[in-house]
Amino acid sequence: MDKVNLKEKFESFSDYWSPKLIGEVDDFDVKVVKSKGEFVWHHHENEDELFLLIKGKLVIKLRDKDITLNPGEMFIVPKGVEHMPVAVEECHVLMLERRGVVNTGNVRNERTVETYQKI
Amino acid sequence: MDKVNLKEKFESFSDYWSPKLIGEVDDFDVKVVKSKGEFVWHHHENEDELFLLIKGKLVIKLRDKDITLNPGEMFIVPKGVEHMPVAVEECHVLMLERRGVVNTGNVRNERTVETYQKI
Repeated sequence: MDKVNLKEKFESFSDYWSPKLIGEVDDFDVKVVKSKGEFVWHHHENEDELFLLIKGKLVIKLRDKDITLNPGEMFIVPKGVEHMPVAVEECHVLMLERRGVVNTGNVRNERTVETYQKI
Repeated sequence: MDKVNLKEKFESFSDYWSPKLIGEVDDFDVKVVKSKGEFVWHHHENEDELFLLIKGKLVIKLRDKDITLNPGEMFIVPKGVEHMPVAVEECHVLMLERRGVVNTGNVRNERTVETYQKI
């Protein structure tokens, strides 16, 4: 039962698009992820997904508009909504979603993570 | 379906210990709260509670130790664990917990909020 320092967590890994588990709130996972470049268009059939930008800049592309997140801004992608995160430069993101959510949603590819490393 | 800027949200209200709802992720509420001074010893019987410090300093007193949060640090109070938040100076906190959680937990007093204002 200790506090978590986000900066220390982000300094402890370097791979992109691979969310790490840093906490659990009931059946929700709190994760951190470093992103750079384009991810993949996908959606989550049954789960909303929260992105809180900690550092850098992240564009969350939706089919009808782009959401540009700067540090201190968050966006919740509703369940079923197609989206593709794009990070022009490296960015640090805090994520929150129900346990069991797969990062690539309805898509399976080389970036799919089904079990998240706890750091 | 818009992004949320935390700083703007914190600037939009001034009362202490009264969490405001800024987002919903499935059945979880995302809230912001300004705190100053001592709250009240309480626990939440069935829900974990996440505190992420955005600004200032917050001490979360537990019965056996104090957790001191600086900006960029978070702490998850497990269900059933007695705690009392104390803010020596004004602090801004992002909170995450299951919908329906009452801020004073098992205690009811003048600070109890059962329905959170959406901002």
